[in-house]
Amino acid sequence: MRVQIVTPTPQSEEIYKVVEEYRKMARPGTIISAVALDESVPPDADPTDPYVLPAILQRIQESERDGADAVIINCMEDPGLDAGRQLVDIPIIGPAQAAFHTAAMLGYKFSVLFPLDSPFYVQKLVEHYGLIHKLASVRILKASLELLATDRPASIESLVQSSLEAITEDGAHVIVPACTYTTGMAAEVQRRLEALGHRVPVIDPGLLAVRTAEAWVDLGIAASKRTYPRPLGITQPYW
Amino acid sequence: MRVQIVTPTPQSEEIYKVVEEYRKMARPGTIISAVALDESVPPDADPTDPYVLPAILQRIQESERDGADAVIINCMEDPGLDAGRQLVDIPIIGPAQAAFHTAAMLGYKFSVLFPLDSPFYVQKLVEHYGLIHKLASVRILKASLELLATDRPASIESLVQSSLEAITEDGAHVIVPACTYTTGMAAEVQRRLEALGHRVPVIDPGLLAVRTAEAWVDLGIAASKRTYPRPLGITQPYW
Amino acid sequence: MRVQIVTPTPQSEEIYKVVEEYRKMARPGTIISAVALDESVPPDADPTDPYVLPAILQRIQESERDGADAVIINCMEDPGLDAGRQLVDIPIIGPAQAAFHTAAMLGYKFSVLFPLDSPFYVQKLVEHYGLIHKLASVRILKASLELLATDRPASIESLVQSSLEAITEDGAHVIVPACTYTTGMAAEVQRRLEALGHRVPVIDPGLLAVRTAEAWVDLGIAASKRTYPRPLGITQPYW
Amino acid sequence: MRVQIVTPTPQSEEIYKVVEEYRKMARPGTIISAVALDESVPPDADPTDPYVLPAILQRIQESERDGADAVIINCMEDPGLDAGRQLVDIPIIGPAQAAFHTAAMLGYKFSVLFPLDSPFYVQKLVEHYGLIHKLASVRILKASLELLATDRPASIESLVQSSLEAITEDGAHVIVPACTYTTGMAAEVQRRLEALGHRVPVIDPGLLAVRTAEAWVDLGIAASKRTYPRPLGITQPYW
Amino acid sequence: MRVQIVTPTPQSEEIYKVVEEYRKMARPGTIISAVALDESVPPDADPTDPYVLPAILQRIQESERDGADAVIINCMEDPGLDAGRQLVDIPIIGPAQAAFHTAAMLGYKFSVLFPLDSPFYVQKLVEHYGLIHKLASVRILKASLELLATDRPASIESLVQSSLEAITEDGAHVIVPACTYTTGMAAEVQRRLEALGHRVPVIDPGLLAVRTAEAWVDLGIAASKRTYPRPLGITQPYW
Amino acid sequence: MRVQIVTPTPQSEEIYKVVEEYRKMARPGTIISAVALDESVPPDADPTDPYVLPAILQRIQESERDGADAVIINCMEDPGLDAGRQLVDIPIIGPAQAAFHTAAMLGYKFSVLFPLDSPFYVQKLVEHYGLIHKLASVRILKASLELLATDRPASIESLVQSSLEAITEDGAHVIVPACTYTTGMAAEVQRRLEALGHRVPVIDPGLLAVRTAEAWVDLGIAASKRTYPRPLGITQPYW
Repeated sequence: MRVQIVTPTPQSEEIYKVVEEYRKMARPGTIISAVALDESVPPDADPTDPYVLPAILQRIQESERDGADAVIINCMEDPGLDAGRQLVDIPIIGPAQAAFHTAAMLGYKFSVLFPLDSPFYVQKLVEHYGLIHKLASVRILKASLELLATDRPASIESLVQSSLEAITEDGAHVIVPACTYTTGMAAEVQRRLEALGHRVPVIDPGLLAVRTAEAWVDLGIAASKRTYPRPLGITQPYW
Repeated sequence: MRVQIVTPTPQSEEIYKVVEEYRKMARPGTIISAVALDESVPPDADPTDPYVLPAILQRIQESERDGADAVIINCMEDPGLDAGRQLVDIPIIGPAQAAFHTAAMLGYKFSVLFPLDSPFYVQKLVEHYGLIHKLASVRILKASLELLATDRPASIESLVQSSLEAITEDGAHVIVPACTYTTGMAAEVQRRLEALGHRVPVIDPGLLAVRTAEAWVDLGIAASKRTYPRPLGITQPYW
Repeated sequence: MRVQIVTPTPQSEEIYKVVEEYRKMARPGTIISAVALDESVPPDADPTDPYVLPAILQRIQESERDGADAVIINCMEDPGLDAGRQLVDIPIIGPAQAAFHTAAMLGYKFSVLFPLDSPFYVQKLVEHYGLIHKLASVRILKASLELLATDRPASIESLVQSSLEAITEDGAHVIVPACTYTTGMAAEVQRRLEALGHRVPVIDPGLLAVRTAEAWVDLGIAASKRTYPRPLGITQPYW
Repeated sequence: MRVQIVTPTPQSEEIYKVVEEYRKMARPGTIISAVALDESVPPDADPTDPYVLPAILQRIQESERDGADAVIINCMEDPGLDAGRQLVDIPIIGPAQAAFHTAAMLGYKFSVLFPLDSPFYVQKLVEHYGLIHKLASVRILKASLELLATDRPASIESLVQSSLEAITEDGAHVIVPACTYTTGMAAEVQRRLEALGHRVPVIDPGLLAVRTAEAWVDLGIAASKRTYPRPLGITQPYW
Repeated sequence: MRVQIVTPTPQSEEIYKVVEEYRKMARPGTIISAVALDESVPPDADPTDPYVLPAILQRIQESERDGADAVIINCMEDPGLDAGRQLVDIPIIGPAQAAFHTAAMLGYKFSVLFPLDSPFYVQKLVEHYGLIHKLASVRILKASLELLATDRPASIESLVQSSLEAITEDGAHVIVPACTYTTGMAAEVQRRLEALGHRVPVIDPGLLAVRTAEAWVDLGIAASKRTYPRPLGITQPYW
Repeated sequence: MRVQIVTPTPQSEEIYKVVEEYRKMARPGTIISAVALDESVPPDADPTDPYVLPAILQRIQESERDGADAVIINCMEDPGLDAGRQLVDIPIIGPAQAAFHTAAMLGYKFSVLFPLDSPFYVQKLVEHYGLIHKLASVRILKASLELLATDRPASIESLVQSSLEAITEDGAHVIVPACTYTTGMAAEVQRRLEALGHRVPVIDPGLLAVRTAEAWVDLGIAASKRTYPRPLGITQPYW
């Protein structure tokens, strides 16, 4: 099967590294392909800005048209997940949605480690997914986005420190790093925490998303058309 | 002050009548103006379709640019309310949001009378506004959209019948007709119900929206920029 | 129309100033009248004390009898709102109820600035109105009631300081000053916060109550008699 | 100890029978005394009418003054419970509050059998007590109040029939008859249901209230003065 | 009647003192008997460990077989309550369940004082009982288990200090000490708090459990067989 | 990796067929092994009976000891999931937990098709997993357990009929057949529903469990030891 990673920002160098991580994780037989937005989207646009939505939806539709079996939105705020599901039949996976539900299965409460100073974005998302009662806290990472994108050891150190605060001060039983740049670091963070005496699962949303995509394709399931109905009388975008 | 009515469908005859109702209700000194989407949007598009969103947002931004003091989205599903609030500073009123909160103030539980056979659209909206515990039921009107748009006596009769079912079977204490075509009929429905022994308020979302717009402009309040932040690094739509 | 302000304490000088604020806000054609409790109620009674309720209800009934079109209870704990609605047909507006619901419409979570050291009074009220999930915090004002009643600049300063704490520490997106003495100060507080970089709406419950009264009278709606039924077999108070 | 039964209606013959039931249940050493409202309250007043509240509070205060160790409000809507707790130090027991919490301990969901055609009164009370998620249904008894007051076999038959409906149609696991007239019938109803193959507890709120009063007096506990503070600056009613 | 105390740990000296407290509280006519687990259970097992459950259930069944009228599980985590209720017909009382529901009746929010550094055990229990919205906090006692078992004055001092923190910092209106070793200390803690100006009820879960057992036996009620059905086709343990 | 299926009933012929289904679904490299309870457990015991728990836990511990990488509990009530997670380090998957969370991701509300006439078992489980707000209904299958175990066409027919009722009457957007005997039938049911015009996902809990086990092993995550701590001072069962 082919799983397409849709990165909801204009292409950049760092993104290549993230996709590389996705490829390592894919099981034999799963082909990872990737697209990003084109240059018409400003480089500093936030993927959740309403102006960005049409560009994301266009990429999701092209993915289906080009034969992808599933789409993963490569952003921890799952932009375009709801609207995109209205437009295509293949499964679309939001890494945040998959990670929050898995966290809810593994322990009493989970904390999200977030790179932006807007904890309520995450809170709203967790509420939207119906899991707010399972959220221990949102911890803002002290590392900058630039550092997270380029310095793996420092990023892991930052994740470990925030995890410790979440565990000891907020009562977190599960940790969800919510940043595409930290894809591929969860296992190391989990080992570091265990060495410090804290046996809590640390979930890698990006890699979990790959497994979720593979599972949903294998089971032949996708989002319900009752919840996400096809737009009326429109067969393709008119903008 | 000037309140702009943004109708999220391509202009049509029936809409003129609705705007006429809005004008009757405006207090002295409030000017009602109105725009709709242009013909690039298919006439049978649903206002909540993701394809339609950019066109709605464009109208909202033009409204602010052209000096409107507030915008009312002329549709009972409030399409574009959240995204629009990110893009402008003036208050944007969603008739459904205003009506559901007013209903919650006036009685124990409210029922929504909805013209489409998709009660869960309304349920999701009520959940999104944090009021699901105040919802008695969503009742689907038995009258067709065409009838609601053209036959006032039959429309009122249909609203009365569904209200009676909501009151006696679902435990509704407040009624919210949720259809732009029935703007201006609530008072008559309330009188009819009272004559039948049921003293429950029937809320006209469109007309309530005008009063809400006037009040928010007078108080100098609009949606919080914490909840609805300006998109990053984008000063105008790029599509 | 005539809107009667019922102040649930024995008349005092400060109250006159508050009513003066109400008058400034009324739209043309709205007459503001005002009553308070008589001297049989001790001056230091809390408006929510059960002993005070009969005196409030008496004033509400007299208001209707004397031809008022709506009543506003001039206290941010809305004493007598539920019981009063059982006794009259005209709309009764609780400033707290109106402010909390408007705050819920304007942003993700709101904080209430309260003059008494009993945050749970406000919490219980917000729960009673079904909005506890929208409450960021109750902040106790550091200014004394006496200062709030007499020193406008110091009161505004106190409101700004508590607002800043609510925004930065509690995650408030909307501010509701909940004290009748601070009626008429919200706009200035909002400007001060904006100058400090915080664009959050500050809601004036008293003035909002006037607009709500006008709107409900215009729409012909009042509290549901299903939720607030007329007392059985009693046509007037017997005490 | 002495437990005073406060009946929140003007005295009537039927009430004597109910108090007789309370006396049978009291353990050795517990003295049951009883008062009702005087004739100034109309005989057909509902105990929850706001007009009736001062009379109930007066009886509660007199009970404490006269040396009662606890008060039981003899009505399944617990009128005066919250306000009364502000005025006295002795425990006040609401039979509905005690019964709903006991029902919540004994099974998954409970149904309330109510004599009046206003299920939402009970729903609101259950919500107010924080137990709405444990409520299976409110079933309206088909027997009239008059029959419930005078015909024990027919009353039990009616309770059994409504219990069966609650169990088989609403998923009730516990039954709470909520009518003072049916005090003393629960055990018989439970036996009848068991004979029909349904082993569900049937709770007698009145008799449970006696045991709760005895327990709270023995443990030396009463309602928290944080939640129910003494009215400010008032030592006795002024009306 | 005979109420059997089942202590879900291997017998030890301290337990005798606790049972002595239970005996003092029983009303005339109530016989308190007691059993503990045998030596096959390790002395440092936690009563909630899954390995311990069969031993607890065995004691509960023996209690019924030997003629006890009710069982109290002598541990503030109520181990075996749900499973035990499936196996016997007599009422089983969980001290935590009884205490939390009583606390919910007496005030707005309650805090639990817990001897182990695992506040989430209590939170999960409160959630399981459907009362999480009434929980102000779980405060970990600073006294060691050994001290709580042997030094009454120091234990009371520790309970008072944690209560003060719960009241002033967490907004607790009711206090529940949740440790079998502190049985019999609540009244003294309540007096101490009142002397310090805090009139909040302090509930003794063990002694409350005795009164609850007596009441349920008197009323003839036990847990619903709908919620706690008899195991299928098994008449006795097979292990 | 090796995934062990633990069937919480004494082995029987039908179970072999179910395990065969699991094997078909395993990806290359995943070895499916299977154990059941021994004959000491009565054949008609319900897997959730408290008497059965020790036998299940023993199998879970043996699975880890014998080198399994993950365990799947082969029963749609997930018996032993919580207790088992305390005893081992490898991931344990409950098919119901995995299916309910996946259903919550795919649509607004889901319905569970259950073979036993005890809908509240499922409701309690959904509550326990924190997803009750996503449950549309529990539908009891009209087919007998025997038929479900032996007649595939009739079983599929029964699943389709109950799904149609759930969709049209209860507002289900996602379907979860909750019976081990129907493992491997979901895809066919989904196709049948789509042919009837209903595009809703039908989730196969057993097969989903395999994918979830594989994913958790790959990601190196298992249940949090904060939520499921190792029993104190016990290294092996003592019964």
